[in-house]
Amino acid sequence: MSTLKEEALQLHEVHQGKLAVSLKVDIETKHDLSLAYTPGVAEPCLEIAQDREQVYRYTGKGNAVAIVTDGTAVLGLGDIGPEAALPVMEGKACLFKRFGGVDAYPICLNTKDPEEIVRAVQLIAPGFGGINLEDISAPRCFEIEERLIETLDIPVFHDDQHGTAVVVLAALINGAKCLGLELPQVQTVISGAGAAGISVCKLLMKAGVRDITLCDRQGAIWEGREGLNGAKTAMAKVTNRAMRKGSLAEVMEGADLFIGVSGPGIVTQEMVRSMSPQAMVFALSNPVPEIMPELALAAGAKVVATGRSDFPNQINNLLVFPGIFKGALAARASRITEEMMIAAAYAIAGRVSPEELSRECIIPSTFDMGVADVVAEAVKAHVEH
Amino acid sequence: MSTLKEEALQLHEVHQGKLAVSLKVDIETKHDLSLAYTPGVAEPCLEIAQDREQVYRYTGKGNAVAIVTDGTAVLGLGDIGPEAALPVMEGKACLFKRFGGVDAYPICLNTKDPEEIVRAVQLIAPGFGGINLEDISAPRCFEIEERLIETLDIPVFHDDQHGTAVVVLAALINGAKCLGLELPQVQTVISGAGAAGISVCKLLMKAGVRDITLCDRQGAIWEGREGLNGAKTAMAKVTNRAMRKGSLAEVMEGADLFIGVSGPGIVTQEMVRSMSPQAMVFALSNPVPEIMPELALAAGAKVVATGRSDFPNQINNLLVFPGIFKGALAARASRITEEMMIAAAYAIAGRVSPEELSRECIIPSTFDMGVADVVAEAVKAHVEH
Repeated sequence: MSTLKEEALQLHEVHQGKLAVSLKVDIETKHDLSLAYTPGVAEPCLEIAQDREQVYRYTGKGNAVAIVTDGTAVLGLGDIGPEAALPVMEGKACLFKRFGGVDAYPICLNTKDPEEIVRAVQLIAPGFGGINLEDISAPRCFEIEERLIETLDIPVFHDDQHGTAVVVLAALINGAKCLGLELPQVQTVISGAGAAGISVCKLLMKAGVRDITLCDRQGAIWEGREGLNGAKTAMAKVTNRAMRKGSLAEVMEGADLFIGVSGPGIVTQEMVRSMSPQAMVFALSNPVPEIMPELALAAGAKVVATGRSDFPNQINNLLVFPGIFKGALAARASRITEEMMIAAAYAIAGRVSPEELSRECIIPSTFDMGVADVVAEAVKAHVEH
Repeated sequence: MSTLKEEALQLHEVHQGKLAVSLKVDIETKHDLSLAYTPGVAEPCLEIAQDREQVYRYTGKGNAVAIVTDGTAVLGLGDIGPEAALPVMEGKACLFKRFGGVDAYPICLNTKDPEEIVRAVQLIAPGFGGINLEDISAPRCFEIEERLIETLDIPVFHDDQHGTAVVVLAALINGAKCLGLELPQVQTVISGAGAAGISVCKLLMKAGVRDITLCDRQGAIWEGREGLNGAKTAMAKVTNRAMRKGSLAEVMEGADLFIGVSGPGIVTQEMVRSMSPQAMVFALSNPVPEIMPELALAAGAKVVATGRSDFPNQINNLLVFPGIFKGALAARASRITEEMMIAAAYAIAGRVSPEELSRECIIPSTFDMGVADVVAEAVKAHVEH
């Protein structure tokens, strides 16, 4: 690990970061200058002043995404502040460009106040075609996203929530296919009721999964349990209709699918052994999963996935956000709906051919450069105008 | 003009704007990904979380400038709004990169409220090494700039004010040299008391010009004149100590230097004839100057400059802002002081060699690619730490 650490620091230092701006036009002569800047630039300005929609025609707005963070929930590092979040946001912008051809730019905000975050994003919105919220802690992220979706006419997407939900659904579609299960049959337990857990839960329900028990550190969430925050209370009303109570270990008994977006090492082999004979284990805590894949497999899990690149079945939202935004921007969608997300998940799942599909290959490689395009096409096909 | 118009529109449409983001690192393999993104990216994050200054070492902050506008005073087009301002801001960003190697990004704000503009810039500041305010109307721009300079630890520069002031001073230095005048002798009239006029006036005074009469549409501004706004009242106390009153034509009599940052065609040949025998006319209204160069020369002006590229002596702040920011960012200056601006003006003037210097060549070409570097060096030499 010390070599990776040194290499990573060196990579970031050698160029002072990872992201630059670049020109799409030549500025080599006075004539070039008179077109790209004064006096010629006045012409597109006037066209846009007359008809604001023309901004999509004459500027980069339609391909520009702001990656907005307040630095409160960065990777597994927590609240490290907006400056310390910048390497992640630059990295994300690199991935947007490299995988989706989208021009994304980091906006690191010097506030944790949801009110100020919402207002800042509303104020900078004219120059952007979409907003990707990133690493903003729950439950503030829900309110911030909701208010921005309500007030902006460009798509707003909280990747930690929805990117994760889409790629988990993609993995589930193929995992279930491998095991001969249909989504409505898959009895599911989700460990972690923060931004990712709740969003995964909602999208799986929308996609047809009927029986989900959401767990936090106190165990199963059920309607009427005391001390739940607003987001959990809302989920308690629509999940766990069997009113299961008790610890994570208790509710995992007989489950077909475990999804962990919680913490390292909290699942034992015994817990996996208690699951159904067709058990799927998606242990997404990173870098240390809820249970290591070899242990889960030895305990009888039939399909195992993690967030790591050094095991089979890497569930990584890099498969999602470049294509989602590429499609939404190309179609000039004003929102990214659950229908678009489900279509994206099926498109990702569909990238694994019937010949390739196996318990060790339920999800495409992160370097499958065709994924973003099929996701974008799927998203475009589901845009409502 | 119709060809230029069509060409300009086509240039903007063909690539959908002029600016993109690009990667400074390769992301071709899983190993690359593990360094530029998770898990490696956590290392620079942790370094910065421990010591915020390290953000300059591991990210692009130190070379990143936000070009901030509210779209209220764009070119000569006026208040056209943040979307319609975007082509200009993208163009500006292109020039920052092309001439200064600086990574600048447009931030077009959806508000005209100075309070909100100040707050928005404060909120986005963590990701940027400098702020270039652009095309914000006077007198709001003064308050906005002042409050940002007070509250931010990165340089803030309103180009419409200070970029113009620096390049005018550079032209004056060489123009005066051509005519054998010293700056303290140059009796000066400035037409236009908005952002540019006031800033030019202040910098010229700081550089040694003693006798300046500032004019607005009502004529000379003098201490005690009724109906002056706050900015003009402040200038009335330190300029026009001779208490000249009357029209622009009246106060131009006997002047050595006319600087127009006002409107097309307001200066007649008769007004130029009434100036001193060593008259300099800087008619910077664009695209139509206060008086056309051939008319000014025929009326006896010895040195004539405009903002246009199709006449000799183009006074263009493109000679200023790339180098000013390049130097300020490299030296990690927290402010851009008047001393730095005067040093920049002398550096620009010095790019015209004694052999080249003439009445028709008082200022370097906008495509003199060496200007930004000499400006940057001059700025760096005057940074106070």
